[in-house]
Amino acid sequence: MTTICAISTAVGGAIGIVRISGPKAIEIVDSIFHSASKRRLTDYDNQSLAYGHILTDDGTLLDEVLVSVFRAPHSYTGEDSVEISCHGSSFILQQVIQLLLNHGCFNAQPGEFTKRAFLNGKMDLSQAEAVADLIASTNVATHRLAMSQMKGGFSRELRRLRDHLLEMTSLLELELDFSEEDVEFADRDKLTYLADEIDEAITRLTDSFDTGNAIRNGLPVAIIGETNVGKSTLLNQLLHDDKALVSDIHGTTRDAIEDCVTLRGVNFRFIDTAGIRHTDDIVENMGIERTYERIRNAQIVLWLLDATSILSTLSPTPSDGENVETVDGQTVKDAERTESDSTEITEGVSPLNNIVEVRDKIIPLTAGKTLIVVINKSDAIPDDRLYDIYNFVYTNSGINENETIRISAKTGYNIPALTDMLIEAANKAEYSNTDIIVTNIRHYDALIQAKKAIEVARQSLDQQLSADLVSEELRDCLRSLGDILGEFTTDETLDLIFSRFCVGK
Amino acid sequence: MTTICAISTAVGGAIGIVRISGPKAIEIVDSIFHSASKRRLTDYDNQSLAYGHILTDDGTLLDEVLVSVFRAPHSYTGEDSVEISCHGSSFILQQVIQLLLNHGCFNAQPGEFTKRAFLNGKMDLSQAEAVADLIASTNVATHRLAMSQMKGGFSRELRRLRDHLLEMTSLLELELDFSEEDVEFADRDKLTYLADEIDEAITRLTDSFDTGNAIRNGLPVAIIGETNVGKSTLLNQLLHDDKALVSDIHGTTRDAIEDCVTLRGVNFRFIDTAGIRHTDDIVENMGIERTYERIRNAQIVLWLLDATSILSTLSPTPSDGENVETVDGQTVKDAERTESDSTEITEGVSPLNNIVEVRDKIIPLTAGKTLIVVINKSDAIPDDRLYDIYNFVYTNSGINENETIRISAKTGYNIPALTDMLIEAANKAEYSNTDIIVTNIRHYDALIQAKKAIEVARQSLDQQLSADLVSEELRDCLRSLGDILGEFTTDETLDLIFSRFCVGK
Repeated sequence: MTTICAISTAVGGAIGIVRISGPKAIEIVDSIFHSASKRRLTDYDNQSLAYGHILTDDGTLLDEVLVSVFRAPHSYTGEDSVEISCHGSSFILQQVIQLLLNHGCFNAQPGEFTKRAFLNGKMDLSQAEAVADLIASTNVATHRLAMSQMKGGFSRELRRLRDHLLEMTSLLELELDFSEEDVEFADRDKLTYLADEIDEAITRLTDSFDTGNAIRNGLPVAIIGETNVGKSTLLNQLLHDDKALVSDIHGTTRDAIEDCVTLRGVNFRFIDTAGIRHTDDIVENMGIERTYERIRNAQIVLWLLDATSILSTLSPTPSDGENVETVDGQTVKDAERTESDSTEITEGVSPLNNIVEVRDKIIPLTAGKTLIVVINKSDAIPDDRLYDIYNFVYTNSGINENETIRISAKTGYNIPALTDMLIEAANKAEYSNTDIIVTNIRHYDALIQAKKAIEVARQSLDQQLSADLVSEELRDCLRSLGDILGEFTTDETLDLIFSRFCVGK
Repeated sequence: MTTICAISTAVGGAIGIVRISGPKAIEIVDSIFHSASKRRLTDYDNQSLAYGHILTDDGTLLDEVLVSVFRAPHSYTGEDSVEISCHGSSFILQQVIQLLLNHGCFNAQPGEFTKRAFLNGKMDLSQAEAVADLIASTNVATHRLAMSQMKGGFSRELRRLRDHLLEMTSLLELELDFSEEDVEFADRDKLTYLADEIDEAITRLTDSFDTGNAIRNGLPVAIIGETNVGKSTLLNQLLHDDKALVSDIHGTTRDAIEDCVTLRGVNFRFIDTAGIRHTDDIVENMGIERTYERIRNAQIVLWLLDATSILSTLSPTPSDGENVETVDGQTVKDAERTESDSTEITEGVSPLNNIVEVRDKIIPLTAGKTLIVVINKSDAIPDDRLYDIYNFVYTNSGINENETIRISAKTGYNIPALTDMLIEAANKAEYSNTDIIVTNIRHYDALIQAKKAIEVARQSLDQQLSADLVSEELRDCLRSLGDILGEFTTDETLDLIFSRFCVGK
């Protein structure tokens, strides 16, 4: 095994770390490092720190450094390892690497330290992959997932499934042993039960991939609202309120109408949708179908209403002024109540009608999701008309006060409260700290293979097929689960996986 | 004294370091860190390493980390200090900082760790300033200067000067003690000698500032050559050959005709110049004067010649064909030798004339510098004509073979050899490892003040002025030198100096 080295910190900080791992790590660093205490690095214990100087071969002082020594197997890689903490000059760091190369080190490939940790049994493959996710984590949710996977949460679940599969296999072997005696059907019930249980567990994992994707790419929030209801102003306000960044979504095709926003450490993916209303236009209906699809895929639905547009319907306008007396606040309220009570049976294109129509369409789609009704442009409404608008919304939307919020995207009014509601909804979303969530497409693919195998096994049991055939499917299933843990992984797969890491990890 | 914390590495690496310093550093980190060995961090010795977990206040695992413990005064700052080595996720690093702030740390200001090191007597101010230079160092020369200053080279020279000044002061005091007895002139010779010595030493330092600037901003290389001789192609080739970067010059006004290039770790600043030839045009003469100035300020002069243009002068052309027989290579050589021998007395605008003219102008300016004659476009010359061109150049320029190189900026021919010559010239340039070089404008200003004071003191001695007056100047001189070491520096000055540091150092 070679001894490898790499700069493990980004360029430009006050401190830069050079990492060395391999059988000659301590010896090679000892040849360029002069401890202030005059002790040889080779005399240092595991997990100890040395202060001293890095000298070039002609004796020039390159840097004052701190050196950490780790002895196999008590290191990240499981090999002898050294970390050199230098001043963060890219020149110094590159010179240190050059010196190490001259003294027998090799440049580390991306992820090679973690790959060695995997090969030395310090972690399984899914844990190794989680290291890259952990480094890439940018918020609470991605951090939580990566950390859980790195600490072996996912691996434990896979091992539990494997134990079940091995139990099935041993039952089948029993059957094979006694096949002459025609006892094969005795345990088939138990086998079927186990197959179902395994199938369910794998399905839970494959189903979690959507959630995993949501967490990685942002919790999907569908925004329903008319064009000028203030959707983009709202997004900008949310950003401004949280000093967050709009960012591209990595790993997914970016839809022009999606915006990724991190609010208080939680990634949200805001998805704009077309309006929802009854129409005979085929193209428009296709747009509405897409809206339904987006609502189904979302975990939170923001239903944006325009307070001024609602008020204009409620208020006496020149055209319907003749039907309404000159009014004070109270009189108008009474008038509206009557009007709003009657809207459910009124046909037309008024917002009143639209609210009822949207409500009927989306309520069935939002079961298990959080639906928040956001009344925007409230700054443009006289205070004494607010009650009317609320009343109108409650009556027509059928949504209660706790799920409704009055904001002004323009002035920022109540934006922090809306953020609170979004965060609360995110915390309620369909995952918890303890659930195992699949985020890695490689794992997902392997799980799908495992699922197919266990389902074929289940069918074979149903069809009373021979234990041999069932056993073969179980082996396929075991192999797929083992792939995730890296038990039968080829060099090519490993290279592919670790090439996605950064150098130095 | 507060306990401060900061992220000391740049964003984006595999590893991120959080640094904590102050009386409560170990105690605060202990409150968020759970050692794998179950030992309290407060029980760890100076300069020891602990492996374990950072937990948030609600018990969530934030990261697996390595923690280095340093106990006062055996740390960089001289205070109790801790370094936490985390996974390089900006989310994790920010969460760790947030936790530390919640547990009683304060955000470190830029350079605050180094400022504390200075305030705790771990280094003087010039050494502290060198830390920032070291981190910013991008090549051998800037690294060498910063390292020398950080290791106290400059400080030792200043202390040596101070010892001389104190010796003068004690001699003056002797004079004051015996002033009644009219012995004041007895030691004036020695005083004068000391003043001269101090003045010389300070002048050496102030003079080094130009060199210091050259090293910081790039070794100045003046390029003399006609417009189409291939200057920009040459620069691009040098860059290409070395995979170096053209960069802005920091801290100086960037001249549009300057290009900074780092070749094999040495900064060069290539300065384009106007051509040199005899002209009566006033504006053109001003340009030529600027060229002379640039040559005087340069340490290397590249004199670029166009081989094709030389050849066209040497070759029989239609216009002068009547004077030359149809020739083979040998005949032409003979013809040229004659011609070139005669050029020194020929008037006109031919390149021959120009070479002689340029030679006469620049040779006096390049004393003590390296002058390299670069014959460009050699790819466009038939091999059998090269000798003619060399002969022409040697004869007319008076420059020998070792200082001449034939290249093709277009094809890259001989560019590595030219780089060798530049590096060799840089190594010969007027500074050596052992010289003290002033690079800091604050130091330069203080030295200029010190120089003024010692010169006034010297004059006062000449004018037989009283010991009191001389003594006052010596105190001024001492104070200026002390300013560099930070002995009498105000808080405002310190703030200004350390605000230029990066956070985390």
